[in-house]
Amino acid sequence: MTQTLLLLPGDGIGPEVTAVARRVAGRLISQGLDLSITEARFGGVAIDADGVPLTDETLAAAKAADAVRMGAVGGPQWAGQPYDKRPEAGLLALRSGMNVYANLRPAICFAALADASTLKRIHVEGLDILFVRELTGGVYFGEPRGIETLANGEKRGVNTHVYTTSEIERVARTAFELARGRKGEVVSAEKSNVMEAGLLWRQVVEALRDAEYPDITLTHMLADNMAMQLVKNPKQFDVILTDNLFGDMLSDEAAMLTGSLGMLPSAAIGAAGMPGLYEPIHGSAPDIAGRGVANPCASILSLAMALRHSLGEPELAARVEAAVEAALNAGARTADLGGNLTTAQMGDAILAQLT
Amino acid sequence: MTQTLLLLPGDGIGPEVTAVARRVAGRLISQGLDLSITEARFGGVAIDADGVPLTDETLAAAKAADAVRMGAVGGPQWAGQPYDKRPEAGLLALRSGMNVYANLRPAICFAALADASTLKRIHVEGLDILFVRELTGGVYFGEPRGIETLANGEKRGVNTHVYTTSEIERVARTAFELARGRKGEVVSAEKSNVMEAGLLWRQVVEALRDAEYPDITLTHMLADNMAMQLVKNPKQFDVILTDNLFGDMLSDEAAMLTGSLGMLPSAAIGAAGMPGLYEPIHGSAPDIAGRGVANPCASILSLAMALRHSLGEPELAARVEAAVEAALNAGARTADLGGNLTTAQMGDAILAQLT
Ligand SMILES: CC(C)[C@H](C(=O)O)[C@@H](O)C(=O)O
Ligand SMILES: CC(C)[C@H](C(=O)O)[C@@H](O)C(=O)O
Repeated sequence: MTQTLLLLPGDGIGPEVTAVARRVAGRLISQGLDLSITEARFGGVAIDADGVPLTDETLAAAKAADAVRMGAVGGPQWAGQPYDKRPEAGLLALRSGMNVYANLRPAICFAALADASTLKRIHVEGLDILFVRELTGGVYFGEPRGIETLANGEKRGVNTHVYTTSEIERVARTAFELARGRKGEVVSAEKSNVMEAGLLWRQVVEALRDAEYPDITLTHMLADNMAMQLVKNPKQFDVILTDNLFGDMLSDEAAMLTGSLGMLPSAAIGAAGMPGLYEPIHGSAPDIAGRGVANPCASILSLAMALRHSLGEPELAARVEAAVEAALNAGARTADLGGNLTTAQMGDAILAQLT
Repeated sequence: MTQTLLLLPGDGIGPEVTAVARRVAGRLISQGLDLSITEARFGGVAIDADGVPLTDETLAAAKAADAVRMGAVGGPQWAGQPYDKRPEAGLLALRSGMNVYANLRPAICFAALADASTLKRIHVEGLDILFVRELTGGVYFGEPRGIETLANGEKRGVNTHVYTTSEIERVARTAFELARGRKGEVVSAEKSNVMEAGLLWRQVVEALRDAEYPDITLTHMLADNMAMQLVKNPKQFDVILTDNLFGDMLSDEAAMLTGSLGMLPSAAIGAAGMPGLYEPIHGSAPDIAGRGVANPCASILSLAMALRHSLGEPELAARVEAAVEAALNAGARTADLGGNLTTAQMGDAILAQLT
C-alpha cells in the first residue's frame, strides 16, 4: 500500500532544504519506494496566506499522513504577532495535535567534521548521544498561563510546569526501548532538588526502570549539572531523557558541541502506528534564507529518520545516511562547514552517492 | 564601625574551603580591616543538629550581618529527606529570607588555566562574562506547587513559573548598572516564543532599557539559542541577564567552559545597604570531602566579592583577587587544576602573595 509523506517546507531556509529532501525522496521512489508526497503551507507563510500558522486542514492532513517532514518556522517579520498567531504556536499545535510526545534528537559528531567543533577533537570525536525529550507537556503547555494586570498596575506573567505519571512513563519507555538498541545507559535530567514536578519525574522514571527495564543502567542528573557535564565530558552519555524545556536547551547545547549543527535531524514520535514528525534541528536562519547556501544535510537526514521510524524502511534510511556521510568524506561542504557548495550542489553530491 | 561577616561553612568540602577564606580574612584584619567574623550551622549539618537546614536564629544572624559567606550545601546522606527538610530548601529559604534577588556569577577564564578548558584555547582565552541571574522568584518559588494524587490514581507534579514587573525590573536594573562598568552590553535570555512569562520578561527589560539605560546595548536571545551560542562563541557575551532557572543552567554551562570551575565565586545581592550572600559556584563535592584536597580559590574569591559588594572595600577585594592570580601564575595548583597542592597549601601560596 502506498504510504504518504507530507512536506511542510515552512519559513526561511525551510523551503530550500526541503526541496533537496524531496529530490532524495524522488530518487528513492524512482528506485521502487512506494511513497506519495504532498505539501502544505505551515508557519509564517501560512499566517500570511491563511491568517493562522496551522490550518485545520493542514493538521488533518498531518494526522492522516504516515510521516510529516517539517522544514523550519519563524522569522523576524512575524515576531510582532499576537502570541497565538506566531509561527511557533503552529509548531506547538502540530506537535500536540499529532500527539508526538517523544522527541528524538541525535547529537552525533561526524568524523569528517570533528575539527569544526569549538571543543578539542579528543572530546567530540566519536560523540554519539541520543536525546529523548518530552515534547507535548511541561511548561510549554501547562495551564494556567498568560499575562495579567494586577490591582497595583503591575503585570504578572505565569506559566505552569506540570507532568502526570502517564506522561512521564510513556516518554521514559521510549528512552529505555531505544537504549536497548544502544549501550543500555539512560541519564535522566531534572531539578528534583528545587521542583516537585522534577521529583515526580525522577520517581516515575526510576519505578519504570525497576519494574520493566532492569537491564538498563539509569542515572539521575540535575539539569544544571548536565549543562556542565556536556561541556566537561560529553562522551560519557548514551541516551539522555529530559522534559520539554530542559530538553530544548540541553539538546541544543549538545548539538553545538558536535560542530555539526547543520547536519542534525530530529524525530518526534508518539504511540506505535501513529505518524511521526521530522525536522532538522537548525532553525529558519533568516540571515541566509533565499540565497541557496543552506546546508541540506539535516533535512535529508530527517527524511532518513522518517524512513526508519515511520515508514518501515530502515535499510533505505541507512542508505540515505551512508550517502550523506560518503559525500562529506569525499569533501563536499556547504558554507557552514567551511566549504562553498550551494544547497543544490550539496544535494547533487549526496545524490551522486545514492546509487 | 566594625562590620560583621557571617560564615556558613555548610556541608562536604564547604568547611574545608571556608577555613582558608577565614585565614585570608584574618590576614586582612591583622592588616587593619575592621571586621568581626562569626560562624553558624547551615545545610545538612544543621539538619543533623537542629532538625532543619536553616534555623530562625541563623536566618536572623544572616539578615543582621553585613555579609554572609556560604560554603556549600548538600550530600547523598540528606537526599532521602522530605522536600522541605533538605539542605537545598535551606539555601532557597536563605536567599529568599535575605531578599538577595540578583545573583552575580562571573565566568572568567584565568590566563594561566586556559588549557584546562575542553574548548580550544582561542575560544576561551580572555573570556569574561558576568551573569546576572534572578534568584528569589520564578519556578523555584512560584505557587501552586506540589505533587497531588488524581482520581484515577495517577500523580501530578506542578510548579509555577511566575514573575511580576517589579521583580523583573529590579534585577534588570542590577544588570544594566553593572554593564555600565563593563562593555555596556546586556544579552537577556528567555523563551518568549513559548512562554508568556518570558514575553513579559522581554517587554519589561526592553522598556527599562529604553526609559533609563539608553546607553546600554540590549539584545534578546532565546535560552536554547544561548545554550548553543555559549559553546559556539562564548566571547561574544559581556553581561547576561536571566531568570532563576535559565540562569542556573546557563551560568553552570559557562562556568565549565572556562575550565576553572573550582575558581569561580558568586554573589547574591539585593537592595542597596542590605547584606549580600557569597558562595563558590562549585557544590559540596561529597566525593572528595574530608580529604583536604579541594580548591579553595572560589571560596577566597567569594570573600573578595563580599569585600567589594557588601563591605565597601573594593581595593582589598582587588588585592585578594590579585593574590589568587599571582599564586596561579607562580604555578600553584590543586588537584582539580592538575597539580598536587592540598587545600591548606594552596591557601599558603595565596597568603604568601597577600603582602
Ligand atoms: C521553535 C520553538 C518553539 C522550538 C521549541 O522551543 O521547542 C524549537 O526551539 C525546538 O527545539 O524545536
Ligand atoms: C543547590 C541548588 C538549589 C542551587 C540552585 O539550583 O539554585 C545551585 O544549583 C545553584 O545554582 O546555586
